Amino acid sequence: MPLVVQKYGGTSVASLDRIRSVAKQVVARHKEGNQVVVVVSAMAGETNRLIDLALSASSKPDMREYDALVATGEQVTSALLALILRSMGVEARSFLGHQVRIVTNNASSKARILRIEADRLRKILNRGWIAVVAGFQGVDEEGNITTLGRGGSDTTAVALASALRADRCEIFTDVEGVYTTDPGICPNARKLSKISYDEMLEMASLGAKVLQTRSVEFAKRYQIPVEVKSSLVNRPGTLVTVEDPSMENILVSGVTYDRNEAKVTILKVPDRPGVAAKIFAPLMDANISVDMIIQNVSTKGYTDLTFTVAKSDLSLALEIIQRLASQIGAKDVIADKGIAKVSIIGLGMRSHAGVASKMFQSLARAGINIQMISTSEIKISCVIDEKYTELAVRVLHDAFELGNLPRPRSKTGKKKSR
Amino acid sequence: MPLVVQKYGGTSVASLDRIRSVAKQVVARHKEGNQVVVVVSAMAGETNRLIDLALSASSKPDMREYDALVATGEQVTSALLALILRSMGVEARSFLGHQVRIVTNNASSKARILRIEADRLRKILNRGWIAVVAGFQGVDEEGNITTLGRGGSDTTAVALASALRADRCEIFTDVEGVYTTDPGICPNARKLSKISYDEMLEMASLGAKVLQTRSVEFAKRYQIPVEVKSSLVNRPGTLVTVEDPSMENILVSGVTYDRNEAKVTILKVPDRPGVAAKIFAPLMDANISVDMIIQNVSTKGYTDLTFTVAKSDLSLALEIIQRLASQIGAKDVIADKGIAKVSIIGLGMRSHAGVASKMFQSLARAGINIQMISTSEIKISCVIDEKYTELAVRVLHDAFELGNLPRPRSKTGKKKSR
Repeated sequence: MPLVVQKYGGTSVASLDRIRSVAKQVVARHKEGNQVVVVVSAMAGETNRLIDLALSASSKPDMREYDALVATGEQVTSALLALILRSMGVEARSFLGHQVRIVTNNASSKARILRIEADRLRKILNRGWIAVVAGFQGVDEEGNITTLGRGGSDTTAVALASALRADRCEIFTDVEGVYTTDPGICPNARKLSKISYDEMLEMASLGAKVLQTRSVEFAKRYQIPVEVKSSLVNRPGTLVTVEDPSMENILVSGVTYDRNEAKVTILKVPDRPGVAAKIFAPLMDANISVDMIIQNVSTKGYTDLTFTVAKSDLSLALEIIQRLASQIGAKDVIADKGIAKVSIIGLGMRSHAGVASKMFQSLARAGINIQMISTSEIKISCVIDEKYTELAVRVLHDAFELGNLPRPRSKTGKKKSR
Repeated sequence: MPLVVQKYGGTSVASLDRIRSVAKQVVARHKEGNQVVVVVSAMAGETNRLIDLALSASSKPDMREYDALVATGEQVTSALLALILRSMGVEARSFLGHQVRIVTNNASSKARILRIEADRLRKILNRGWIAVVAGFQGVDEEGNITTLGRGGSDTTAVALASALRADRCEIFTDVEGVYTTDPGICPNARKLSKISYDEMLEMASLGAKVLQTRSVEFAKRYQIPVEVKSSLVNRPGTLVTVEDPSMENILVSGVTYDRNEAKVTILKVPDRPGVAAKIFAPLMDANISVDMIIQNVSTKGYTDLTFTVAKSDLSLALEIIQRLASQIGAKDVIADKGIAKVSIIGLGMRSHAGVASKMFQSLARAGINIQMISTSEIKISCVIDEKYTELAVRVLHDAFELGNLPRPRSKTGKKKSR
């Protein structure tokens, strides 16, 4: 019997009525002859309410307790969905992270899944019952509750699909799929019918908020077909799947932007071997991920070092770096929150030259200065002044001819690729 | 080092500000040189909000899912208190039922504690840290979340005190202690400075809502001194403790009432051996506890059977009994929700005669008819028409001279023994 893992996001379970609609969809999929696992997020707004509570209790909350607090959001939704399914006469059980069990490392609030012990779920599924799983949460080896970071329910769903060798993972959300860019910025953004894991991985990590990066990593590693679709309209969404030859013909698949990073520059760092390690090791220890790093050519034994981190990590990063700067004899540390990263992604870049120069030229022609550049085989990212974000996205979307025929922003234009 | 278990009820943790006050009290107790375990209830109103959610999702909610849902209330409070303690620079950790672990049977929503595996708590305490425990919840052998019923956090606290061989258990609540009766009904009700486990057990099970019955059972079995006191005023409360000789001199310690029971009468039951077992076994199987049972003398091979159950169990009990009635050939089943049970409790009854007749006479003189009577060594209960509840309580409180000198209901008269 085919096994389907479905995931419903916060807006899809925002009220009891919405959860009832979800229950009907789940039962329909079950009646078609599938084993069904449903992963749910917290009701829309609930996670933010809990985070506010935590921040009112403590301006620098201990993250173990923070996780125990915010994990209740998904616990409520999973119990409610199971209650509704059972009141419809369908056998269903809810499971929390520690009940499945979804074992993670102990990095509270951004834990990574180490393994899934899915025997209990399998037993439930083999009885023909529906398993409802609270998304976003796991448990570490010591039994502490952990959470997987924003969008973590996507990862719960795809990781479960991998562990259970599911035939398909369906991510129901408030958008109809993955778009060439944010339709809120480019009204002629186009829904992609198919995208490769690698492109999706870049899109997710470069700012398209439709899937959590780690969920795409799981999907790629275990080759689970993932469909991103709307829970409100019954239309095909975007299939994230293995690369096929036709995909290479498309030069650029999408344009993304990310305003959640901040730039840190350390001025006049003595250019000695090991100095970079000395700077970045303590950041890693503090679980801060550094994105782009640029080191200028050294002059007279000194160099400037620039890197970007998530804005939410900036104050902690600055605390660490300022302490370090004096230790290593650097001159100064400056931070800039007013930046944005715009990126273009496409498998076609691997075999087609000139994509980068076309990107730089388009931005230059619009008068946008590039502060940092980072490239990989299938993406190019530029850090620019934040105020040019929308302009840059539109310029690049047009330059690579990604849109539908231009049309005025219509009533359905509110779908966003966030 | 002495070990103290404290429990704070819903009104004591009703807001972040209240939780901050609790945190200060906890830290003070810790600084006096005690190991401290704190058990918390859900924030006032939260459990009702969650129950309403469950009932909106399903009119007859599955109790396993119901428990997973309502247990989030205490999870939120315990995490918040730990966050606040840590923001004050005090080492503290929160623990859920399954983390302690508090192992219960699988009777969802009225689970009983089977054992407590307190090694993890002990480790925390031996480090000098404060342990915060979510009240009201446990985990069954299969890892399902269970809850202990209304007032279950009291039981969590006393059971933890027993398991940890604590020196004292302090129950902080919105009243100043255990009263001779409800001051809302008798303004001259008096706070008891001391009461025996057995009397407290009867008071709790007969309607005084100040401690959950099972918590008193634990306290009695392990002889844990339990002090019931207010979290708002710093005054001695009531000490629940082992019996001492002076206690026997008091004929009656308190008067309680309970409006939460309903009466079921089965008419013309064929009086055959085994018929009572046939009736009550299925009720027990459905986890319905039957309180008082009266069987009239049989006439012509038939008898009438009357018993009381909690009002919340009435519809399920009637369903079961009506099915049975036709099987065993009884004539009819009638239910009455309009009843109340008034009780008097006192160790002195064991050695003093005439207490019962004084009770019956006092009620008769007030024109109150007695429908059912039940006695034990230290209590007498009468079922009466619900509308006479307050009158009966006042009549009995006066008859046994339990009050302070009469005084008008003052501003401080709002403390209730509920």
